[in-house]
Formats: sequence, C-alpha cells, structure tokens
Amino acid sequence: MLKIFTILSIFISLSYVTSAQTTDEDAIFIKKIHDQILINSKCHEWLRELCEKAPVRIAGSKAYQNAVEYTSKKLLEIGFDTVFLQPVKVQYWSRGDLETARLSWRADDKNFMDIPLEILSLGNSIGTGPDGVKGEIIEVKSLDEVDTLGSAVKGKVVFFNRPMDASQVNTFKAYGSAVDQRVYGASKAAEYGAVAVIVRSITLALDDFPHTGTLVYKDGIKKIPAVAVSTNHANFISSLIARGVNPSIYIENHCRFEGERVDYNVIAEIKGSEKPEEIILVSGHLDAWDVGEGAHDDGAGCVQAMEVLHTLKSLNYRPKRTLRCVLFANEENGLAGGREYARQAKENNEFHLLAIESDAGGFSPRGFSFDAHPDVIISQYRSVCRFLPLFESYGIFFETGGSGADINPLKDMKGLLCGLRPESQRYFDYHHTANDTFDKVHKRELELGAAAMTSLVYIVDKYGL
Amino acid sequence: MLKIFTILSIFISLSYVTSAQTTDEDAIFIKKIHDQILINSKCHEWLRELCEKAPVRIAGSKAYQNAVEYTSKKLLEIGFDTVFLQPVKVQYWSRGDLETARLSWRADDKNFMDIPLEILSLGNSIGTGPDGVKGEIIEVKSLDEVDTLGSAVKGKVVFFNRPMDASQVNTFKAYGSAVDQRVYGASKAAEYGAVAVIVRSITLALDDFPHTGTLVYKDGIKKIPAVAVSTNHANFISSLIARGVNPSIYIENHCRFEGERVDYNVIAEIKGSEKPEEIILVSGHLDAWDVGEGAHDDGAGCVQAMEVLHTLKSLNYRPKRTLRCVLFANEENGLAGGREYARQAKENNEFHLLAIESDAGGFSPRGFSFDAHPDVIISQYRSVCRFLPLFESYGIFFETGGSGADINPLKDMKGLLCGLRPESQRYFDYHHTANDTFDKVHKRELELGAAAMTSLVYIVDKYGL
Repeated sequence: MLKIFTILSIFISLSYVTSAQTTDEDAIFIKKIHDQILINSKCHEWLRELCEKAPVRIAGSKAYQNAVEYTSKKLLEIGFDTVFLQPVKVQYWSRGDLETARLSWRADDKNFMDIPLEILSLGNSIGTGPDGVKGEIIEVKSLDEVDTLGSAVKGKVVFFNRPMDASQVNTFKAYGSAVDQRVYGASKAAEYGAVAVIVRSITLALDDFPHTGTLVYKDGIKKIPAVAVSTNHANFISSLIARGVNPSIYIENHCRFEGERVDYNVIAEIKGSEKPEEIILVSGHLDAWDVGEGAHDDGAGCVQAMEVLHTLKSLNYRPKRTLRCVLFANEENGLAGGREYARQAKENNEFHLLAIESDAGGFSPRGFSFDAHPDVIISQYRSVCRFLPLFESYGIFFETGGSGADINPLKDMKGLLCGLRPESQRYFDYHHTANDTFDKVHKRELELGAAAMTSLVYIVDKYGL
Repeated sequence: MLKIFTILSIFISLSYVTSAQTTDEDAIFIKKIHDQILINSKCHEWLRELCEKAPVRIAGSKAYQNAVEYTSKKLLEIGFDTVFLQPVKVQYWSRGDLETARLSWRADDKNFMDIPLEILSLGNSIGTGPDGVKGEIIEVKSLDEVDTLGSAVKGKVVFFNRPMDASQVNTFKAYGSAVDQRVYGASKAAEYGAVAVIVRSITLALDDFPHTGTLVYKDGIKKIPAVAVSTNHANFISSLIARGVNPSIYIENHCRFEGERVDYNVIAEIKGSEKPEEIILVSGHLDAWDVGEGAHDDGAGCVQAMEVLHTLKSLNYRPKRTLRCVLFANEENGLAGGREYARQAKENNEFHLLAIESDAGGFSPRGFSFDAHPDVIISQYRSVCRFLPLFESYGIFFETGGSGADINPLKDMKGLLCGLRPESQRYFDYHHTANDTFDKVHKRELELGAAAMTSLVYIVDKYGL
C-alpha cells in the first residue's frame, strides 16, 4: 500500500530534523502495543463489569460509590505503585421518584385528547413539585425567538425545537449547533414569564428516547422546570401546532438538589524513573447520567485510560515520566472533579506535560485534538506533530481544537492537552439516554482507542515535547 | 481547526502546479453534495425497501429477480436517460431444504453425547444427500497441516480452525489471513481422502452465527461437502478435542447447482455532454448470500451507487462524461456479472476513465483505494491525488491497493479503478450471515459513503485524470 500519508511523513520528518528523531524501534513498539491490546485486552470486560455494577452513576449517588469501589479495586489488582482517591465535594442532584407529563388538545368540537408523554428532566432542573405545572405549548427554534416573542410566552410552556444541523459531518459540531437550547432555554423563557420549557432531544436520530443533559440557570432569573422529549415526540408536538390545535402540556417532576456530598476522583500512578516531576495523564470521567449505563459516556473513556497504564505495565515498559490514570468525578453536572484535580495540581506545583481525555465514545479512533495555553500552543503542537508519522498507518490524524472538559482546568499551567476523537456518527444516538448501554460498545473499536492513547503516551514519555 | 492535513494540502498542491487546478468552487460544490445527501437522501430508505422486498437474493433466485425489479423501477422513478438490464448467465446454487448436523462423543464409560450443531453450508458446496456423511473430527490450523497429516485424515472430517488474526487493525487483512481455509479447505482435505470439512466462521466476533461464503473445488480433486460453524461452536469443538474425547460429526445437507439461469446487471446512465465516450462508473453488487438481507453486503453499495447519480441530478449537475451506475449480478459465487460487463465493454470498446465499487459495508467512509494496470497506476494515482485536498476535511485518505471484485475485470483496459474503504471493525461481525440485516446499517454512515463517492465522481468528471 502506497499511502498518501507516506508523502506527508517525509515532509513532516524533514521539517523536524533538529528534534529528537523517532526510530523503527518506536514503530515496532507501537505495533506491539496494538497487538497486546487487540489480542489480550480485558478493557471491554471491565466496561461490562462497570456497567453492571454501577449503572446510573450520577455524582453523589450510591451508584457512583460503587463505580469508585469497582475501578479502584480493579486498579489495585492490576498492581500499580499507587492507587488513591481524591475527595471532591459535589452537589447531589436527584431526579426524584416520579416524572410524568400529559399532552392535551382539542381534536374537534366533541373530542378532547389527553395522552401521556414520556419526558426526562434536564440535569440540575428544579422540579414542579406535586402540583405540577400546566400551560399551552409555544414552539420556538432559538433563544432569540423567545426575545422576539417577549411577553407572548408569559404563563406558557416554551418548546425549543431546533434540530441539530444534519449537514455537519462531525456530529459534535452538529451538537454544538443545538445545545444552547438545552443549556440556556429555561432561563431565557423564564425571563419573559414562561412556566416551564420542553426541549427537543439533542440528537440526529429519530427515535423515542428522551436525552437528558445539564442546564444552567442564570443568576437573578427565576428557575423554571425543564424537560427533554424524544425527537419523534418533538416532531409530533410540532405537527399538532402546525395543525393549529394549540396543545397544552401538564408536567410533574420532583427533581432537586439534595445537598453536598463527597465523591472521589480515582487515581492510579506509575512513578517516572528519570523525570518523575513531569506527569503524563490519561483520563475519562467516572460519573454518568442517572439513566442508562454510561457505557459510551464515559465508561468507555475510563476503561481506556486504565488500559493505557495496564498495557505499558504488561509490556514491561519503564516510563521516564510519571504516568497517571485519572477517573474524574462529576463531569456531567458540575465539573467538580476536574476543578478539584487542577486546584490541587496547582497547589502542589505539579507539571502535566501531557493530559489526554477520552470522552467522545468508545468508537473507532480517528484522531487526536490538541489544545494548550495560547502562549505555547504553536510550539507544543509543532512538537507533538513530529510523532504523527507513527500514527499514520493507524488512520489517526492530529488537529488543534478542544481537548476534554475535565482536563481543561489544567490549561493555564501550560502543558499540552489532548482529546481522543473517535468516529462520531453514532455517539449522539445514545448520549445521555437510557439507551447508552454496554452492548452498544464494540470490543475492537474500544480497544483501538486505548491503543492509540497508549501509543501517544509512550512516545511522549520517551521523547518529551 | 488547524488540521495537519492542511500542510499536506499545500505540499500536494505544489507538486501538481502543472495540472488543472481545483478551485474554491469545487470545495463549495463538494460541501453542497454532502449537505444534499445528509439532509435529503433517501438511500437509507431504499436500502430498507431492498432488504424487505429482496432478502436472500442469491444469483439465480426469485429473490434476485425481485431485487432487479425493485432497483430498476426505482432508477426509472429517479428519471435517468437510460435504465437497462444486461443479461448475465449464472449458475444457480441452491442450499436445499435441509442442512443439519449432530456432534457426538463419548463423555465417559456410561454416557454418549449426541447434540445438534448449527451449520451453514459453504456456497457452491456439494451436498451429502439424504444419507449424510459421518466421521471423526480432526482439527487443523492450516492447509499445510493437512499436507503434513496426509493419509491420517482419510475417512475423517477435517475441521479448519485457525482464527482471523486479531492483531490486524484492518479487518479485511485479518479476513485475508484466514479465508484460504474456507476457499480451499475442502479440496485440500479431499486430496487425502477426508469425507467432509467444517470451517470456523471467518469473523473476529465470538458469537453463534455461522458465516457462509464461497469455496472453490480444484479440478481433478474429488468434491466433498463443506460447512461453516460459528466461532463459539468452533471453540467448543476444539475444547472437546483438547479434552481428548475425539468427537464425531454427522452432516446432512442437500445443496447443489441447479443449472444455468439468466440474471441481470442493472444499469442506469446519464450521457456526458462533452466527452460521452469517457465513462465514469459507480457500482455495488446486487446479489447477496441466501441468508440474511444482504444489507451491508452489498445492498449498501448498491443504494450508494444509485445515490451518486441521483444526487448529481438533484443538484442539476450536467456531467461532461457519461456517468453510469451498475448493480452487478453474481458477485458472491461466480462473478459472472462483472465478467460479462467487462466483456461487453471490451467488445464495444468502451473506455472507463474511473470505475468505483462500494463493497465493504455501509459504515463511515475512511478512504479510497486505487488500482490500475501496472502500466498506468503511477501516473493515474498521481493524477487523482491532486484532488486529495478536497477530501481531507472529510477525513478521507487515498491509498493504492485493491478496488472491487466486480470492476477488477476492467483493469486491462487501463482506466482507474477505485474501492470505497469504510471503517472496517464491524463488517465481519455480519458478513455472510443471517445477521446482515437492515437495522445494522446506520443512516448517516451510509450517506457519508455515498457523499464521498459522489464527490470523487464530480471532481474526476470535471477535470479528468
């Protein structure tokens, strides 16, 4: 195979003749990493166990404790120098025992329709309490449209129904084109006196699963309840409105914050033999939404991060730098785990040469996205690009962009941040739903992501940046 | 996003300053192709209909006729200049009404075990007839091992059990590492007097689905029956042998060739406005194995090929060259469709500037593999590579290698051949099984493949090679 990448390799190689050069030995070791993982990895099995033992592991829950227990025990079994738990204060948001809705409209002079509608409260939403709320539904496609409608939304339930932009090839960009409705819709509608909001699920799939996800209430604006409906149901409600029958919705939910609890970031470490003060971190987040098993989001990233250290250990690789696997708490509805980790890292003056997060699903890896403080991004990206030739035959690209929510707080310490970028088409089919279950994660796709991450850790450990 | 591909683009662009240059307009049109397909495509729906109306559409079957009828009608509805059927003589291989097997072994002094075992006869295999065959199972890992065993296999059933090589990242390479057992195992075993062969299914998945696929009987060697067993069952049989209990198998099947029939290649065409004598072909194969729905193999390729012409027509693109969509007959167990097409193309002195086949599943596209006659491969590959920058932001690589089985017979006419290369991890989970059904094909992944093919057809039509 005469890949076009070969030309690129030569080009890149010529550009960096002054840097330490990788050798054939490195390509061989990276092949060994892939062989080891594709033939012997247990990370898919770990994911099965995590999903079985700790589904619905939202921050502050008993299920999250189970996840901490399972992963820390597994990391100890693997036999690392150090496995420790870093306490993190989180706010426990509970969905409550009941969330229910009914959709009603006058079908004609004689008939009044009243049917149940499946909903999923948005994360961090307040609840209606036992009395529920009821209002006529008013459909909008954007936050701006609420501003235009102004007082017309008063006493009503605002229905945010702008679909993700299907023309975006990368579904994360398509997600970005719609998620403002979920995050800020409630506050925007409340500004003009709406009593609640319903939000079209943020997915390109047409199905019956409502997708939850976090909302943010703006300071100084009244908090109103917010729930998601599936894309099929959103289309149905929209068709009723188009017919001019003015449907109303009754919503009752009991979600609420139940106070502060202590969760843990789970951390395993292999001390570096030459430069222990330089840390290379691999991570995922251990919490998940309180529906489904959090298999792709982000059980996959956790077991991949565990597999990175496990594989290097299995291959008797002795790292120069300190390698650290971190499973972060509370990414989904607070980011307390990532913030606390960065706070302590700063306090202890720890330097993270490279931090990798996998939080985009356990699908086939397609690349890495690199980020860093503006002062260093160009030099650091140039430096890491000298390793690209080693990744080319695995179909892995490099780009600049975001990295991961949990490692982002490390940015001002001027190390290189990196996000694994897997194939994105199926991710939002499962994201934040009861349908994000273990059976959706393909063994080899998951393993290939772990192999790509391990390869990057190896090469940066060996040569630095 | 500062993709590393950008550097490549500049480099490639500089290398081809002498060739006709693509423009911003081309990038815009290729984006338009993607928008059109991702927003409006019906190809996923066509696939659903094809799978519903014509599952198990093996060459010569009534189901294949249904597939011809459905696709030709659909192509006429789309409104092409010409839709025609090209007759192809095929040999109709029928599985027969019954295929059954029983596995038996002496468990201990008192107990004799005798259990049913699910099998799937290999394509083109002879049947045992009503008497069946029975023999002790002898396990081997390679054709060579049979040569070593020699007369020790006489009267026995040879069990080929070498798994696919899991360490291969590309599963098509892993497939290539094991498929010789399925294709040539029967003749090799028959050379030394074996009465039948069983073959471990050619897949990396551990599951209960036997995978069929074609075998080839060598001239002058006795034909013996050959069947596939699932990977789970293969592991079970192997574990019995390892325990030393010498299992036997009874096989009865009634598969046979039932004579010559006439199938059709389905062809649709848009005549070129400037160089109608230069043909650009897009294709898949319309036949499938007689189990499952042939959704990934190769209903996906067919509806993608149809979508290419449909999309260019929808965008009012007027091609310079003649665009032809070909759905080939009989790829799976004879290749008569591809051979007949090439024969007539030669007879009519038709020049295929570019022929594309999609026959590797309806998964997210990762690249194109190009092939051509050795006299022209370097110049043609160099020429097509000047278009690579247009594909980079869609994550599409170019490489040399194979193209597709149906278009390969065109090779000595010295046009450029091309195979779509989708993400390969899941393909062999479904390949040639009852499990290759419509629900396994993701709408957007299928569409992105069609969009990549359409983009390549557009740019080669516009600039030539």
